[in-house]
Amino acid sequence: MSWSLRLGSVSGIAIRVHFTFALLVAAFASHLGEKAGARGAVFGILLVLSLFACVVLHELGHALVAQRFGVLVREIVLLPIGGVARLLSEPKKPLHELCIALSGPLVNVALALAAFVALGGRVPELDWAALQTRAMAAPSVESVLVLLLYGNVTLAAFNMLPALPMDGGRVLRASLAIAIGQVRATNIAAGLAQLLAIGLAIYGFQYNPLLIFLALLVFMGAGQERSTTRTNVLLAELRAGEVCDPHAVTFAPGDSVGLAIDQTLRSAQAHFLVTHGAAAIGTLSRDDLLAFAGRIGLQAPVSGITRRGALSVPPDLALSEVRRLLQEKGGAPVIVRGEDAVLGVLGLEDISRIASLTDHLARGGVRRQVEPSPETSV
Amino acid sequence: MSWSLRLGSVSGIAIRVHFTFALLVAAFASHLGEKAGARGAVFGILLVLSLFACVVLHELGHALVAQRFGVLVREIVLLPIGGVARLLSEPKKPLHELCIALSGPLVNVALALAAFVALGGRVPELDWAALQTRAMAAPSVESVLVLLLYGNVTLAAFNMLPALPMDGGRVLRASLAIAIGQVRATNIAAGLAQLLAIGLAIYGFQYNPLLIFLALLVFMGAGQERSTTRTNVLLAELRAGEVCDPHAVTFAPGDSVGLAIDQTLRSAQAHFLVTHGAAAIGTLSRDDLLAFAGRIGLQAPVSGITRRGALSVPPDLALSEVRRLLQEKGGAPVIVRGEDAVLGVLGLEDISRIASLTDHLARGGVRRQVEPSPETSV
Repeated sequence: MSWSLRLGSVSGIAIRVHFTFALLVAAFASHLGEKAGARGAVFGILLVLSLFACVVLHELGHALVAQRFGVLVREIVLLPIGGVARLLSEPKKPLHELCIALSGPLVNVALALAAFVALGGRVPELDWAALQTRAMAAPSVESVLVLLLYGNVTLAAFNMLPALPMDGGRVLRASLAIAIGQVRATNIAAGLAQLLAIGLAIYGFQYNPLLIFLALLVFMGAGQERSTTRTNVLLAELRAGEVCDPHAVTFAPGDSVGLAIDQTLRSAQAHFLVTHGAAAIGTLSRDDLLAFAGRIGLQAPVSGITRRGALSVPPDLALSEVRRLLQEKGGAPVIVRGEDAVLGVLGLEDISRIASLTDHLARGGVRRQVEPSPETSV
Repeated sequence: MSWSLRLGSVSGIAIRVHFTFALLVAAFASHLGEKAGARGAVFGILLVLSLFACVVLHELGHALVAQRFGVLVREIVLLPIGGVARLLSEPKKPLHELCIALSGPLVNVALALAAFVALGGRVPELDWAALQTRAMAAPSVESVLVLLLYGNVTLAAFNMLPALPMDGGRVLRASLAIAIGQVRATNIAAGLAQLLAIGLAIYGFQYNPLLIFLALLVFMGAGQERSTTRTNVLLAELRAGEVCDPHAVTFAPGDSVGLAIDQTLRSAQAHFLVTHGAAAIGTLSRDDLLAFAGRIGLQAPVSGITRRGALSVPPDLALSEVRRLLQEKGGAPVIVRGEDAVLGVLGLEDISRIASLTDHLARGGVRRQVEPSPETSV
């Protein structure tokens, strides 16, 4: 992800902060600095950084539990509106999603409890404005603890709103999915989220325009979850071997880069097999051609930019599984290999195209009829 | 264009108004209504409609002159931020662009002169706020004429700002192009426009946030003009016959829709030739398959949704010309036909892909070497 700075990594998960986050720190510092001088500015910076440390811990909660369930995590990104743990694939079971979704808010509950204990078990009054004013008048470790207590309670409560794609919405969807299946659960959770988003937007129009932005994010995010689940069902009905193009162009290792470029001008293929006789040596992608052609020249053989070691998948693997594998591998294509021959190469571009096509067709009432193969019928 | 209402047409050019325009009329009516009651509201509506009539005449100026030079005009759309005449292709010569760009502002100059004459040749003082206040206090034909005089002078002056893609920027680009060629002229005009946009944005931050939005439109529009001109040069170096895929899939008229759908799942081809032996009968597009498969069923022959009467182009036609033809035809593909055989089918998707690829390659220093054919070298 560009426009962001890598802070470090935990358990192999990179933690990045988006550059716009600096604006938030500056805004808090100048706001509190105006009210309470240099000491206020330092307190403002400390406050933002402490709250965002809680957000990082919240996201790490999601990420580490996801890793336990075998879901790869690409990175955690901090934005001014909050943090995101970017998972490379979806959890396989509703119970896994339930645990992953709950683990973030639970971190905030634990932090709030810790602050409560550190404060000696006192519960200060619940008035945000008064709290902030008092904390600014006399910045102290205690005032930071009080703000952390309320900050973490707020983070936990806010994230548990039952609005997909927020944590509470995921908890709701996963709980429903255990009883009525993923598709119906997602439709219900996404519908509820969009209703809540409309309510939030109406409220925001009257009281706080920032909420309109949040409502929009929730509304679109819920729609995205619904469409992902729907296409996953459609992709599960197709198998890797069925969508390999028998007319696809392949290259020999000695073919020139210039020849390969001519071919990318002629066809929309994003990935090509590089074969030696009947054996697949590796894959050549349009992106690599574009990136390296200038450096190695048009006369160079494509073997120099052929990627070896591509994952092989069997022809009867469902496309939903192929998509999961491709997402986990960060976009490198897979080779579809039958018992006797190599059938083709599939990349994320292909799966996206097929997902969009089948989705369009399904809305028009056309569902590809696939006879269940004997092994998979129970 | 959706979200818009067709008002009528002039010389075959549809005039449409975007629904957000109603918001502008309502805003003016309520603003002036608050200040001067029902009479003020009516005056506000009359004022907006008169000014937008001037905008329509300005756009018709562009559109009718463009038609004279053989450039097809799709429609004129009125948005709250102004009007747009949507041309289906670019003018062929800098002199044509110069005339088309000048004709819009000239209409406003003519309208201002007409108002000036109707006012008996008097020049009222140049104070917008005072003019508006006086006009509202005593709405009359004369006050409308005064506002039209100044409105048209403002429209002409504003549009002649030398910032591509505005009219003044086009005039500048076309004038430069006559001396130093289209590419260098566009680079200079777009660079100047982006500089002006940055200045406008800085000014807008301090005085009027609406100007930031305008600055953003100009900045992106100028970048778009630069990229269009650059890819046009690259596309001019390639010929239709060179980018037809000899491996492309074709269908027979009796092939089923189901078979065609299977093929669109396997390959990224957006258009297919439907052939009978060596003869091309027509073209079949992925979009038509998606739109009609549900209605006609998977067993129906593709002949039912084959488009006949596609334009044929010779193999040595430059791709820049192919793009112009495709844009004029509103997206229907063309068939590339050699003397002895049909070579393939090209749609806008293909040209966009090729434009993006050649642009990427050119930035990496890779330019496809095409030997000039004997007929075209002078």
